[in-house]
Amino acid sequence: MDGRQGRVEKVFRDPVHDFITVSHPVLIALIDTPEFQRLRRLRQLGCAFGTYHGAEHSRFGHSLGAMHVMGKVLARLARAAGLQLDPDLELLAQAAALLHDVGHGPFSHGLERVLTPGVGHEQWTRAVVTGPTSIREVLEGYGPGLAARVAAVLDGELPGELAWVHRLVSSQLDVDRMDYLLRDALFTGAFYGRFDLERLINTLTLVDGQVAFTYKGLPNAEEYILARHYMYWQVYFHKTTRAQDLVLRSLWRRVQELVRQGLHPLDGPWTPPTLRPFLAGEPVALEQYLAVDDHDVMFAIKMWLHHPDPVVADLSARFLHRRLLKPVWRQPPAQPQPQVLEEAARLVRRRGWDPAYYCLLDRTEDVAYDLYVPAGPAGASHPILAVDAHGQLQELSQVSDIIRALARRARTAVNLYVPAEVRDELAQRLKPVAPQGAGR
Amino acid sequence: MDGRQGRVEKVFRDPVHDFITVSHPVLIALIDTPEFQRLRRLRQLGCAFGTYHGAEHSRFGHSLGAMHVMGKVLARLARAAGLQLDPDLELLAQAAALLHDVGHGPFSHGLERVLTPGVGHEQWTRAVVTGPTSIREVLEGYGPGLAARVAAVLDGELPGELAWVHRLVSSQLDVDRMDYLLRDALFTGAFYGRFDLERLINTLTLVDGQVAFTYKGLPNAEEYILARHYMYWQVYFHKTTRAQDLVLRSLWRRVQELVRQGLHPLDGPWTPPTLRPFLAGEPVALEQYLAVDDHDVMFAIKMWLHHPDPVVADLSARFLHRRLLKPVWRQPPAQPQPQVLEEAARLVRRRGWDPAYYCLLDRTEDVAYDLYVPAGPAGASHPILAVDAHGQLQELSQVSDIIRALARRARTAVNLYVPAEVRDELAQRLKPVAPQGAGR
Amino acid sequence: MDGRQGRVEKVFRDPVHDFITVSHPVLIALIDTPEFQRLRRLRQLGCAFGTYHGAEHSRFGHSLGAMHVMGKVLARLARAAGLQLDPDLELLAQAAALLHDVGHGPFSHGLERVLTPGVGHEQWTRAVVTGPTSIREVLEGYGPGLAARVAAVLDGELPGELAWVHRLVSSQLDVDRMDYLLRDALFTGAFYGRFDLERLINTLTLVDGQVAFTYKGLPNAEEYILARHYMYWQVYFHKTTRAQDLVLRSLWRRVQELVRQGLHPLDGPWTPPTLRPFLAGEPVALEQYLAVDDHDVMFAIKMWLHHPDPVVADLSARFLHRRLLKPVWRQPPAQPQPQVLEEAARLVRRRGWDPAYYCLLDRTEDVAYDLYVPAGPAGASHPILAVDAHGQLQELSQVSDIIRALARRARTAVNLYVPAEVRDELAQRLKPVAPQGAGR
Amino acid sequence: MDGRQGRVEKVFRDPVHDFITVSHPVLIALIDTPEFQRLRRLRQLGCAFGTYHGAEHSRFGHSLGAMHVMGKVLARLARAAGLQLDPDLELLAQAAALLHDVGHGPFSHGLERVLTPGVGHEQWTRAVVTGPTSIREVLEGYGPGLAARVAAVLDGELPGELAWVHRLVSSQLDVDRMDYLLRDALFTGAFYGRFDLERLINTLTLVDGQVAFTYKGLPNAEEYILARHYMYWQVYFHKTTRAQDLVLRSLWRRVQELVRQGLHPLDGPWTPPTLRPFLAGEPVALEQYLAVDDHDVMFAIKMWLHHPDPVVADLSARFLHRRLLKPVWRQPPAQPQPQVLEEAARLVRRRGWDPAYYCLLDRTEDVAYDLYVPAGPAGASHPILAVDAHGQLQELSQVSDIIRALARRARTAVNLYVPAEVRDELAQRLKPVAPQGAGR
Repeated sequence: MDGRQGRVEKVFRDPVHDFITVSHPVLIALIDTPEFQRLRRLRQLGCAFGTYHGAEHSRFGHSLGAMHVMGKVLARLARAAGLQLDPDLELLAQAAALLHDVGHGPFSHGLERVLTPGVGHEQWTRAVVTGPTSIREVLEGYGPGLAARVAAVLDGELPGELAWVHRLVSSQLDVDRMDYLLRDALFTGAFYGRFDLERLINTLTLVDGQVAFTYKGLPNAEEYILARHYMYWQVYFHKTTRAQDLVLRSLWRRVQELVRQGLHPLDGPWTPPTLRPFLAGEPVALEQYLAVDDHDVMFAIKMWLHHPDPVVADLSARFLHRRLLKPVWRQPPAQPQPQVLEEAARLVRRRGWDPAYYCLLDRTEDVAYDLYVPAGPAGASHPILAVDAHGQLQELSQVSDIIRALARRARTAVNLYVPAEVRDELAQRLKPVAPQGAGR
Repeated sequence: MDGRQGRVEKVFRDPVHDFITVSHPVLIALIDTPEFQRLRRLRQLGCAFGTYHGAEHSRFGHSLGAMHVMGKVLARLARAAGLQLDPDLELLAQAAALLHDVGHGPFSHGLERVLTPGVGHEQWTRAVVTGPTSIREVLEGYGPGLAARVAAVLDGELPGELAWVHRLVSSQLDVDRMDYLLRDALFTGAFYGRFDLERLINTLTLVDGQVAFTYKGLPNAEEYILARHYMYWQVYFHKTTRAQDLVLRSLWRRVQELVRQGLHPLDGPWTPPTLRPFLAGEPVALEQYLAVDDHDVMFAIKMWLHHPDPVVADLSARFLHRRLLKPVWRQPPAQPQPQVLEEAARLVRRRGWDPAYYCLLDRTEDVAYDLYVPAGPAGASHPILAVDAHGQLQELSQVSDIIRALARRARTAVNLYVPAEVRDELAQRLKPVAPQGAGR
Repeated sequence: MDGRQGRVEKVFRDPVHDFITVSHPVLIALIDTPEFQRLRRLRQLGCAFGTYHGAEHSRFGHSLGAMHVMGKVLARLARAAGLQLDPDLELLAQAAALLHDVGHGPFSHGLERVLTPGVGHEQWTRAVVTGPTSIREVLEGYGPGLAARVAAVLDGELPGELAWVHRLVSSQLDVDRMDYLLRDALFTGAFYGRFDLERLINTLTLVDGQVAFTYKGLPNAEEYILARHYMYWQVYFHKTTRAQDLVLRSLWRRVQELVRQGLHPLDGPWTPPTLRPFLAGEPVALEQYLAVDDHDVMFAIKMWLHHPDPVVADLSARFLHRRLLKPVWRQPPAQPQPQVLEEAARLVRRRGWDPAYYCLLDRTEDVAYDLYVPAGPAGASHPILAVDAHGQLQELSQVSDIIRALARRARTAVNLYVPAEVRDELAQRLKPVAPQGAGR
Repeated sequence: MDGRQGRVEKVFRDPVHDFITVSHPVLIALIDTPEFQRLRRLRQLGCAFGTYHGAEHSRFGHSLGAMHVMGKVLARLARAAGLQLDPDLELLAQAAALLHDVGHGPFSHGLERVLTPGVGHEQWTRAVVTGPTSIREVLEGYGPGLAARVAAVLDGELPGELAWVHRLVSSQLDVDRMDYLLRDALFTGAFYGRFDLERLINTLTLVDGQVAFTYKGLPNAEEYILARHYMYWQVYFHKTTRAQDLVLRSLWRRVQELVRQGLHPLDGPWTPPTLRPFLAGEPVALEQYLAVDDHDVMFAIKMWLHHPDPVVADLSARFLHRRLLKPVWRQPPAQPQPQVLEEAARLVRRRGWDPAYYCLLDRTEDVAYDLYVPAGPAGASHPILAVDAHGQLQELSQVSDIIRALARRARTAVNLYVPAEVRDELAQRLKPVAPQGAGR
């Protein structure tokens, strides 16, 4: 990246968007903070790189991309409405897009629940934006109250006439998804997530304070919803990735158990100092949280290869050398009956593995496109809208057969994972229903 | 990846080649070894991810890609000659391509010379292939002597009639370059490295034991040489990447210096155990070498942020938060005069930095395409050949104006890097020649 | 195109498939016949070039493409089954694919019904393959009976165990569609028709004499069906193209009417000699049919610009200068009530136009994907199949929500076209339902 | 295409540029004139469709494309200079780009010299713009004198400070080339002509009234010059295309000769009325010129298949069924010696062909990039400029090794074409130098 033509601007080359040009000094300063640079050390897709070897990209590029797409969407909406963009609104929206993932921790969704139970990455993001950080300093240095406003955009607490700005950051049609579907499709090598971003953006418009597709854009809207549908089932829920997540969480739980039992002293050689508060189960301060990234966890696992506890050493080797657990695939009834689980556990134990770490149930669920449910939680289920030639807004599935086919049909997969060594025997005993093709 | 249709084959989705299918059991077993899986933890382009944020890809994908391209080239050569491929030769060549980078260490070229001085990655690769490793076990398990033969392909010690196989792994026209130019172009987002691989391969033929372009393929050959030319100057030699490499080596040298002075005890908390032999300057055993990857170094740098030595702490922060050294760019005469360097050092020191770590000369050099020099070292300067309609082989620059323009014209850049804080003052004092546009 | 490396083979560069290599001498000879070369003079999409200016491509490229795709599909099916291809079957299938459109006439579907009423292009194709032509000569010269066998493939009269070969030429999953969707998408610039041909082909297999998708290929199958769905509604049924077709047919009918009334002598200067038998309404001999292509019709229309009959002159100018009829769009009930049509005709006539030529009803209908209807006509409604991990064949919509959403839902559009000059008045009087956005 | 959102604008989907949006009413009206619509009936690459079957595209799309690229270049230059565009200048430049090819005749360069000898398409273009046409009417209707100003842009007669506008329409770096290289590369399926248009445009700037590349753009400039280099030698000068041009001109000359001898009466059935003035060798009026397009010539050739003169009938069949003349390829000395030509003619005649029509010399010449020659003709050799970081303009080859390699090196190919039936014998007798591979 570099400045050109005397103006202070930064140009990033990006595999997805080609050039990302940043010219607002606040955005440039935000990118240069240690908290944002830390995103370079968090993989976007956690353990998925074990399944799709190209998926080694970090949240840094995705965050730049989301900010970039926000700029394009805003410019389009202004053009469609024949208006000038309010520069302050533009900065606010782009800053929110840039920072929306800044509270993620190592291995993202895979480790979040065990690392800081009860505190999700959204809360950490709010803490980073409004807490004692360089990011807050940059925002407040530009305009007092800006940090709080950015947090309000992220949390959906803007006044009603600006609710659409929040939805562009976080809803079913947001710049987060627009970037990550394309980015993850590119890096994984999966083709499913591709859609034509330029065309999608150029069919959006702003009607009555709502972002909507014009009718011309229905094929683009369908393409986008399908991309999401495929990426979830072919990539994000891939059984190998889920297995690697499971092994990682098992390993972490085992070490925590040893800590609880006094068998793994936290000041000993087996614990990277940065991980101590997490393994101790103590409350974690913001500074401690931000000090940790994928490298600390990976470094710990590499050391744990030689851990005296055989479960820790085995799970570490399984994780690093990709001898993962394997699914014994279940079709509905989605929830295996208790006696099935008990028998599986018995069998696993008899073969020498502790079922607490080696016989694990995993549940994935997705609705490709949710209709609006008035009483539902904010954001997630806000409908995607289309506007007809007369300016009437309609919910997307009302005007598209294809979307209607995908809407509201939740797809649940429940898998039982066990060591490969025991899978065949178990599969035979449990008489599982035939595996569905293509992981569908 | 997964097996399909009952046959044991592995399919990898790849961002560059789409599908990479591996069916030979030896190749599958090699990929599954811990030594090969370790390549997932070595970034292909070392520090370049700081310049091109997408360049976070590892040597794992590149190694698969090189093996894949080898398979395609061999199939093409057989087809062009109307022959059947010898399966043993195919395995040998593909294994060599797969393993050609298996001896790389953390941060590749950036750290190689300081990490194990005098022992390059080629030597480590030989050690991995022929030493006490799972890789050797797999190879010897298939056929006694196979490990030595793979090493011979890598080292160019095959009998003369098979010299072309070595050159396909390592020469100016090899599967290594074919993959990395495309892969690095994709991940960096630079467009320069793109060329049409299918067409390139489909214009190759084997004449008198030499791989050559047919005349039809001259535009493809030119495109390939140009891709290399651009990637070197726009990506591999990018001044920001070079700066990050310099800071990394400065940091390492500083810690080593403290170790020598007894100011950094190797058994203390500041040294990840895996790095001890390297910092101690002791001979490093293969097992110790393979235990280390990018994560160990990154974890150390993150801890060194809080190191008591201010130079170590400062350089660590510069590395992690990207406050790098900046070039004071020099045109030829390439080698700055001693008094210029002395004055620069004086100035840097006066501003409070130790020039040994903050005033650094960097030299990059490239010849886009080398003509054959008979007495030269094996491999590197072996010419690329073209075959005319009468089966006569000619050196490429004899038949292409464009190649001739690039051949043998070494381009040298020598830069002096200093802290940004002192660059302007220094630039003024040293009266540098005007910066060349576009790093050209 | 040219021969390479001494073997007799022809290489065509193709915008869709890159290289199309033809090596069988019979295929090369078929391409060189005057009857096949004539396809260069028939636009693939008739009048669509007036709507999508890029759609100027001929049936020549499409026919080569269909043959090329057939070769790839056959190779895949053999590879999936672990079999060698029967060279005679391969020739038969590729020849049928190459020749499947050889009986088309000028402006294809747009003019077919008025040019040789009651004789469709399929019948002409059979006549070309089995009649006194160079094509028949080439086929019979290679093997007596081959012409009849090619015709049998085209007509679906192969013995049952080879029915799949016919279906690859003409069914809902055939090489014809595979090529034309991609080709028309490329040339029109519409993005809808794109799908990943390589992946599609690589998920096909042959089970119990039926071509089927493997479960892995469901996303590819869906992508293909969606491509067809979009192309029909966005391109093939585009209202401007339909209008240009209508004007062309009106013009032709008018000239025929004048001929019948003795007002347009066929031996006069207003009739290109080649068009005489068609305008005379006489039976047309094969030789006469093949002598005519788009150029004859275009040349006639250019001359008719100066025709003494004002309707002929006006319609010719409308066609050439694109002052077409405009739709007064109707939603269901699809069939306008008689009194509406009568009123429209009255109005058009009052404004000075003969409604027989200027007030025209157009009906388009499509089912994106038909389920199997056992008693239905051969070919058209043969279902697309998917094969699960146990080798069970299932109809595609049984295993795909998306296909099910598109299946069997016929979409009908009926439009009334009138001169632009009268559209607004007519629209107001007829109180048409609001136009559907995007022609959906 | 259609209007959107109430504004009067036309949107064309284009295979090269995706969407081409036209909003200025004058440009829309120009496109709707019969003279511009006529460009739909002139193939962009004349006979090249016989070599590259995809190259069936017309000058209509190219002209739209040139206008579109002009809009993008102007917008970039304004943005780079921080200026607002003058709407009148924008209209002028875009109209000139749109109309620059409006004077082309059937089969373009292939037939131009024999159709209206001494009057090139540039003169016809001026006549269309300033003569009694709908185009002139539209221009003058908007602003008196506009037609003359458009002609001045096309002819390079603008005042000096606007000379760069002319050069954007016609020079070595103009919107004509930018569009046709990409368009012809796409439609032919040749990959050589591809370059990154967005990047190219985004590296242009306006310095001292001169369009120039910034230094950052050197790789883009090189890519563009190489694209031109390859397209000339691989596509535009392809020997099969040249052969088809030769046959076409031979045929035309033969018919003209028969007319002169009174053996082909112009009012007889063998002459489409529109072609009479051309075959008569009379001066051709603008109206007569515009009445003729590819269809008239193709229709005539199809009729001439049955012409009583055997040479006319044979050449027509050769043209239509692609039994073309074949080159006997000559390396330098470029100009065959007279006795060689005489012997060739003797041999051709002895085998029964009239050498005046069947033994033809063809000369192609190109300089990939011309340096500036001060006294040279306007336009063609105006150099491409690059601007360094200090605002200094430099001629492109001064700063690029690759351009320098291509500059000023004229490549001449002279071929003698004869019937295939006699080529081998002739080749043997004339002892031709070995054919250069790949037409290089």
